Amino acid sequence: MSKKYAVGIDIGGTTTKFGIVNKAGEILKQDRIPSNVHENVEDFIDELYSKLMPMINEVGGIEHFIGIGMGAPNANFYSGTIEFAPNLKWKGIIPIADLMSKKFDLTTKLTNDANAAAVGEMTYGCAKGMKHFITITLGTGVGSGIVVDGKILLGHDGFAGELGHTVIRHGGRLHKGTGIRGSLEAYASATGVRETAIEFLTENPEQESLLRDYTINDLTSETVYNCAMQGDNIANHIFEFTGQILGESLANFIMFSSPEAIVLFGGLTKAGNLLMNPTRKSMEANLLPIFQNKVKLIFSELKEADAAILGASALVWNQ
Amino acid sequence: MSKKYAVGIDIGGTTTKFGIVNKAGEILKQDRIPSNVHENVEDFIDELYSKLMPMINEVGGIEHFIGIGMGAPNANFYSGTIEFAPNLKWKGIIPIADLMSKKFDLTTKLTNDANAAAVGEMTYGCAKGMKHFITITLGTGVGSGIVVDGKILLGHDGFAGELGHTVIRHGGRLHKGTGIRGSLEAYASATGVRETAIEFLTENPEQESLLRDYTINDLTSETVYNCAMQGDNIANHIFEFTGQILGESLANFIMFSSPEAIVLFGGLTKAGNLLMNPTRKSMEANLLPIFQNKVKLIFSELKEADAAILGASALVWNQ
Repeated sequence: MSKKYAVGIDIGGTTTKFGIVNKAGEILKQDRIPSNVHENVEDFIDELYSKLMPMINEVGGIEHFIGIGMGAPNANFYSGTIEFAPNLKWKGIIPIADLMSKKFDLTTKLTNDANAAAVGEMTYGCAKGMKHFITITLGTGVGSGIVVDGKILLGHDGFAGELGHTVIRHGGRLHKGTGIRGSLEAYASATGVRETAIEFLTENPEQESLLRDYTINDLTSETVYNCAMQGDNIANHIFEFTGQILGESLANFIMFSSPEAIVLFGGLTKAGNLLMNPTRKSMEANLLPIFQNKVKLIFSELKEADAAILGASALVWNQ
Repeated sequence: MSKKYAVGIDIGGTTTKFGIVNKAGEILKQDRIPSNVHENVEDFIDELYSKLMPMINEVGGIEHFIGIGMGAPNANFYSGTIEFAPNLKWKGIIPIADLMSKKFDLTTKLTNDANAAAVGEMTYGCAKGMKHFITITLGTGVGSGIVVDGKILLGHDGFAGELGHTVIRHGGRLHKGTGIRGSLEAYASATGVRETAIEFLTENPEQESLLRDYTINDLTSETVYNCAMQGDNIANHIFEFTGQILGESLANFIMFSSPEAIVLFGGLTKAGNLLMNPTRKSMEANLLPIFQNKVKLIFSELKEADAAILGASALVWNQ
């Protein structure tokens, strides 16, 4: 019997999203559970099972499914394990693909969450047909998926593509999670934009800004966006600063793998041209002439949650 | 008749080296001509032909040859052209693979000189059997060849792997050839080491140093090495500074493609542990824990000229 459906699961730091996907890339059903309630990965899988099985049965049962694709932080495609993920409760090396496979009796493939998103873009999104591209997720952190010759770049050990942790400002802002100074993620993430806002407001106490009306807890990348849209100078300057750093990093990435496109997605892309314009300008200014005006810089057209679920499901369609 | 030999040619900024290579990777004969005497690429090819044909005939004639492999700056593997090479006399787009192929009546493959060296390492050198590694040439400039899944990473347009031009010091030293500030090549090349020496001597006028006995023309990376070996503080500090910057760049590269090894070669590697120790220390300090103490950092065991000729010849063996 030819298989009609796949399960796609995206394990995020706070929420796990999952759905039933058909071959055309339509998400027929989807739901979510918190990622960090269960101390024990087996209990987490039990909850996932209790939510997923009714959905699976509604479309005709497990025999119509080709498998389960999962994206997760610090996931290793080769071994199917999540390894020392700082944002998840389960410590050490978690053989989650094996555990899922036994629980559901379905082939289970696992990859890094950012890689899953890249597979989603390649299979169903704006990178369809491209052989060389990079996706950058600008969310709470900065994730990346690199596609080379039509395949996710995994590297020697399965951990390639940690571009958020590359250093772009020597001796710069401390990244509290890693202890590394000046990494891209310290600036071009929602967390980074918030830190930039606090820095700019503190360093320019005389300069008026709508941002001063917010409590420190309400200073988020959304607040900065809203104030920038109202013409606030500091808020606009925050996006220019963020775009400049992001653009320099993108130029470095281009000179590494010479992609056809860079696809940006995640919460920060809601800033639209406020972020895109300074990013593109800075990217082009830092490229050798042979790379200039060649690389498409685009926002993903997939919804973020959808990209991750679709990408995870595509792991089993493409096997 | 099974073919026994290949021609390997390495076109450098000043010298073109070429040789006859057998399948075992032995260079049976080799010679060199200047690269930049002929305004016209056809005249250059004529000189190459007049030197190569006697060598070819000595081993039995052209019918024993599988083809010609060439490495050159700004070379495009896909099109067989050298494009806008700043260090060569021939301007614009030069279809050198086609011209060579017609002149010699042999299949001719062209690739970037640094990529040719990486192929040499993979086929005959210390990266034999590796599927994921990066070679970095620390010469007059900084070249790089990236191997992913056992193949040279070419990217969308054939120009991937320009790691010497990635920025590692925002707003840092001006690279005169490119106009980019703070690129790796501005520091971790023979030219960069010389500039660092001049900077350190100028900025610390009180500090004694053996380097002050040399004229500005004699301040080379070799001079710095010789003085460092005699215990000179400034000279030692120059290698520490260079290694620190190189190590930070290598950490960024590792978090991109997660290679099994990084192979360093070129003139600067003669500095041995003076360069290797600070480079390794800085590389490890800038890596996420999942990458630490995993990646081999090694000096090439091939002679530089040999690596390029061997790598170029391997292009036709491996086709």
